[in-house]
Amino acid sequence: MKTIGVLTSGGDSPGMNAAIRAVVRYGVRNGLKVFGIERGYCGLIDGAIKELNFASVAGIMEKGGTILRTSRCGEFFTREGREKAANQLAKFGIEGLVVIGGEGSLTGSVTFHKEFGVPVIGVPGTIDNDIAHTDMCIGVDTCLNTVVDAIQKLKDTATSHERAFIVEVMGRESGYIALMSAIATGAEAAIIPEVPIDFDQLAERLLEERKRGKLNCIVVVAEGAGKAEEVARKISNKIGYETRISILGHIQRGGSPTAFDRLLATRMGVRAVQALLDGEKCATTVLKSGQITLIDTEEVISTKKKLDLSLYEMCMTLS
Amino acid sequence: MKTIGVLTSGGDSPGMNAAIRAVVRYGVRNGLKVFGIERGYCGLIDGAIKELNFASVAGIMEKGGTILRTSRCGEFFTREGREKAANQLAKFGIEGLVVIGGEGSLTGSVTFHKEFGVPVIGVPGTIDNDIAHTDMCIGVDTCLNTVVDAIQKLKDTATSHERAFIVEVMGRESGYIALMSAIATGAEAAIIPEVPIDFDQLAERLLEERKRGKLNCIVVVAEGAGKAEEVARKISNKIGYETRISILGHIQRGGSPTAFDRLLATRMGVRAVQALLDGEKCATTVLKSGQITLIDTEEVISTKKKLDLSLYEMCMTLS
Amino acid sequence: MKTIGVLTSGGDSPGMNAAIRAVVRYGVRNGLKVFGIERGYCGLIDGAIKELNFASVAGIMEKGGTILRTSRCGEFFTREGREKAANQLAKFGIEGLVVIGGEGSLTGSVTFHKEFGVPVIGVPGTIDNDIAHTDMCIGVDTCLNTVVDAIQKLKDTATSHERAFIVEVMGRESGYIALMSAIATGAEAAIIPEVPIDFDQLAERLLEERKRGKLNCIVVVAEGAGKAEEVARKISNKIGYETRISILGHIQRGGSPTAFDRLLATRMGVRAVQALLDGEKCATTVLKSGQITLIDTEEVISTKKKLDLSLYEMCMTLS
Amino acid sequence: MKTIGVLTSGGDSPGMNAAIRAVVRYGVRNGLKVFGIERGYCGLIDGAIKELNFASVAGIMEKGGTILRTSRCGEFFTREGREKAANQLAKFGIEGLVVIGGEGSLTGSVTFHKEFGVPVIGVPGTIDNDIAHTDMCIGVDTCLNTVVDAIQKLKDTATSHERAFIVEVMGRESGYIALMSAIATGAEAAIIPEVPIDFDQLAERLLEERKRGKLNCIVVVAEGAGKAEEVARKISNKIGYETRISILGHIQRGGSPTAFDRLLATRMGVRAVQALLDGEKCATTVLKSGQITLIDTEEVISTKKKLDLSLYEMCMTLS
Repeated sequence: MKTIGVLTSGGDSPGMNAAIRAVVRYGVRNGLKVFGIERGYCGLIDGAIKELNFASVAGIMEKGGTILRTSRCGEFFTREGREKAANQLAKFGIEGLVVIGGEGSLTGSVTFHKEFGVPVIGVPGTIDNDIAHTDMCIGVDTCLNTVVDAIQKLKDTATSHERAFIVEVMGRESGYIALMSAIATGAEAAIIPEVPIDFDQLAERLLEERKRGKLNCIVVVAEGAGKAEEVARKISNKIGYETRISILGHIQRGGSPTAFDRLLATRMGVRAVQALLDGEKCATTVLKSGQITLIDTEEVISTKKKLDLSLYEMCMTLS
Repeated sequence: MKTIGVLTSGGDSPGMNAAIRAVVRYGVRNGLKVFGIERGYCGLIDGAIKELNFASVAGIMEKGGTILRTSRCGEFFTREGREKAANQLAKFGIEGLVVIGGEGSLTGSVTFHKEFGVPVIGVPGTIDNDIAHTDMCIGVDTCLNTVVDAIQKLKDTATSHERAFIVEVMGRESGYIALMSAIATGAEAAIIPEVPIDFDQLAERLLEERKRGKLNCIVVVAEGAGKAEEVARKISNKIGYETRISILGHIQRGGSPTAFDRLLATRMGVRAVQALLDGEKCATTVLKSGQITLIDTEEVISTKKKLDLSLYEMCMTLS
Repeated sequence: MKTIGVLTSGGDSPGMNAAIRAVVRYGVRNGLKVFGIERGYCGLIDGAIKELNFASVAGIMEKGGTILRTSRCGEFFTREGREKAANQLAKFGIEGLVVIGGEGSLTGSVTFHKEFGVPVIGVPGTIDNDIAHTDMCIGVDTCLNTVVDAIQKLKDTATSHERAFIVEVMGRESGYIALMSAIATGAEAAIIPEVPIDFDQLAERLLEERKRGKLNCIVVVAEGAGKAEEVARKISNKIGYETRISILGHIQRGGSPTAFDRLLATRMGVRAVQALLDGEKCATTVLKSGQITLIDTEEVISTKKKLDLSLYEMCMTLS
Repeated sequence: MKTIGVLTSGGDSPGMNAAIRAVVRYGVRNGLKVFGIERGYCGLIDGAIKELNFASVAGIMEKGGTILRTSRCGEFFTREGREKAANQLAKFGIEGLVVIGGEGSLTGSVTFHKEFGVPVIGVPGTIDNDIAHTDMCIGVDTCLNTVVDAIQKLKDTATSHERAFIVEVMGRESGYIALMSAIATGAEAAIIPEVPIDFDQLAERLLEERKRGKLNCIVVVAEGAGKAEEVARKISNKIGYETRISILGHIQRGGSPTAFDRLLATRMGVRAVQALLDGEKCATTVLKSGQITLIDTEEVISTKKKLDLSLYEMCMTLS
């Protein structure tokens, strides 16, 4: 293999730049020509492709977002789109691909590999932490710290006004961010897609704690489990607190990556290039107990990541 | 004067604790007995009053919110409410009051002073920076840094997806936070209560910049000038960007205070106690060119703080 | 088991308070009486022991350091000292102990358990990450982020002045912090106890990069591998940069814990109490691939944690 | 005036990039050609000069350091050096200069202006806050927040181990950073060049507080008032605490600028270009009570900035 390409796809997550940097620099150091493909699969289809060298990726590790930009590319889900993409690869002489992104992006990579034979290594980058077989995805740690920081700020003002806050965080399918941030901030409850919630019971518990002297109340809701406004409507008049809502929104995607995400992304980026050099065809880099290894991408996308529900218990027990 | 009281009132702002600490410690060092009054004027009416000493305020300077808690107290706007408050002061032997809060709180302090003669020194604590005669209010600097940090995060993801973000920030009457954060983040525009906005013209300008190659667009809206959603509706289909909204909400009130707010609050707290000891009756501590001085509170509340509109020009010129 | 004690021992690390909170609250929820022992084994010997309840640990999770305080206790390394400690346990009716600390503290716990039979569960809290069988220790993640943040600041000024910085970080026996922070900041080199360094070769490489146009140079040294001043003396006149040193020192121990450390500490604290309830005698909580499990403490202290040296290569390859 | 140049000189300070951006963009918007001069006066002498446009300064506001780099340039203090500099200006057609830097840089600008007639507007950028006639210099606020953050981290570990920390901070001539950070963190004392210190008296006071139950002790020393090690030697065996030192060093110069520094720098940069357009010859932009105005540079450099020593009292009174 002499020439590879790298792209970021789907929702951006902090640390993607560290992964790009690692792919480019490790590739170049190992004699490869490395192309950067802009705006995910869309740029692959359009030929928005340019060579990157050691200097192109200087100073990007600490930046949020992705310098290659990203997109959700409908056209790549069509056979025609993928054919155009394959033609672009041929045109630029790209023999292998590193795809940094979430579940949809990995799924696309499998289809593309099967149809056109091009080796594709996936690197799991998504703040949802919903990819199986890896302990963590790139961006999750930064996102979690952003959420914890925001909730801590809300607690300041919640206590001062003796209020409840219903905080809506990211997580369409997964309650990971909601549950972990709830534990890490001592929130009273997390409402997550994985566990059905009895609002009356919740309200009762909160009222109980209010009576025992609690000065604030934080309930974290994963967007996939309900809207903050809905939750507020259902419980606010039963819990004894004045209630406010806060939707954290897109700040959860940004920010300079944490040390953890920089290291994870760097190691996964390096491992992805090694995999291409080793002749791997369609695998994904994963973190297992501190080691970066490879798992067949089909295996990854066909498994549903499970949330450890004993943590759900723990959240309630400790608050 | 032997005994004073201190309370925080209205919306909380970061740095209020540093002011409380300064009032208590400077008071105690100068032989005063200092009472902390909980939940603003409400606690004054209810007699939620307890003595504070040097140790009671240890380790609170770095905390957001207010350990005395706060409220917007309707009852204090009635003559009966204020009478109850005056009785409580008599009961606890409190001869002078330090009121930390925004414009409403200062207004209340003037009425109360006029009716019952009790000396009241105001300390301007509000993230709105809408109090006249002082360069800054306690909490504004921290709030501004929180907003700048959040917008910076939004820019990361805005650039990655080539999107526009309409960011709604605090400021019911004042565009200070919106305008300053727009300048400090290089946002494309600020929409503020002080300046009428021509949405078509704005949209045209943004479209122009998009065509010239800009990869993101940030518009900051003060809540008093419109809702983020409205703004998005009015411009999103004319500017050439996919548009998202972000309402920063209550995180703007929280957080460990910046160095600036800790210093400002500490100095104002000390100055307020000095004022009581000096026999001042109804004044407010203000910051003027690095010095803390006193201004008659009636003068303060009867003046409208003006925003320097040359900064509005500057924002647009530089983005 | 009806009554347990918890202490923090050795160097403090961020997250210890989250562990204390979890031990206390999980204990209380499960019907235990929980005593907090001050200043590590010293307080155990002196009887500086007091009961903690749900409220005692409110609001401590986000604080650096340890509310129980800590010490390195020489007397506990004597038989007499440990006998006094055992007597105190008897006096307070404490039937099991949770010890949060580093390797020395765990070693002490094994001796104590063997001599007096008291069940002791270890919780690995140390910023050195030098404890075997666990993926991470409490405090390491926060420390690493503090170091990365500091080095990023040094890079700003290094680039502005075209300088080299030799940065000394913690790690007497382990190069973990040095190596990981070097990778996460794109430093030119890490000097660590695990790998002998050829200073001439290093200087040559740095000179080479300087000639190729690099505008700054960061070398991270673990304190166990040499002093920053020494390193500067050995290479500064050969690398073509003006050189400065920076010793990060004790700021590495402080700071509000990251989300990772809060979660790790909370989960380990809960697991430690469960272990005591389950009748475990002398085990340590460890993190393995996202799960918290137990390992015999003797096994833990008799194994030397190895640093993954492929990361050392990677650091140099990517900078 | 059709063509101007901008340079940064002396020690770098956070916010310099925001000033550069403002000079370039405001200049370009007003029809000027703007040249960036590298490495301060050295680059001016060497002709390291290149045109900057709107895009050259995109995304730099949030970065620490200075993209133009900086130096302390001995040659500019010679007549020959300044002649070379004047020749370069002529060669590039530069008719006016904006010099961003500290006192030495402003002094150089006066000499240069007097000898060669070129209009030079100074912009005070230095973390020392030792420039007269301006409430603040660019970089001071960021530096102060970095110091406060670091001391807060030291307090965590100081309390946990019941230790004293002697913290050395920047400030060769001025105790501003030391004193302000001491107040903002509740440190026990500040040792500054402006006030002679009686070490025995200090030690006695600290011992007194230790006896009253204080669990930590922080003493902040400005580098111009002594070395941390010396201070530790003089007091450590008399204060009843185990003592550690921490030299914060160059991290104080770095970091993404705070909102305050971004705004100050932006406004001063704009004002500097306006001054050149208005025909000013040798003035410096200053902040006075929230307004940016101009003061004759000779006036600025011939005045010594005074520290408000009532704050020194306050520091001790409140701790």
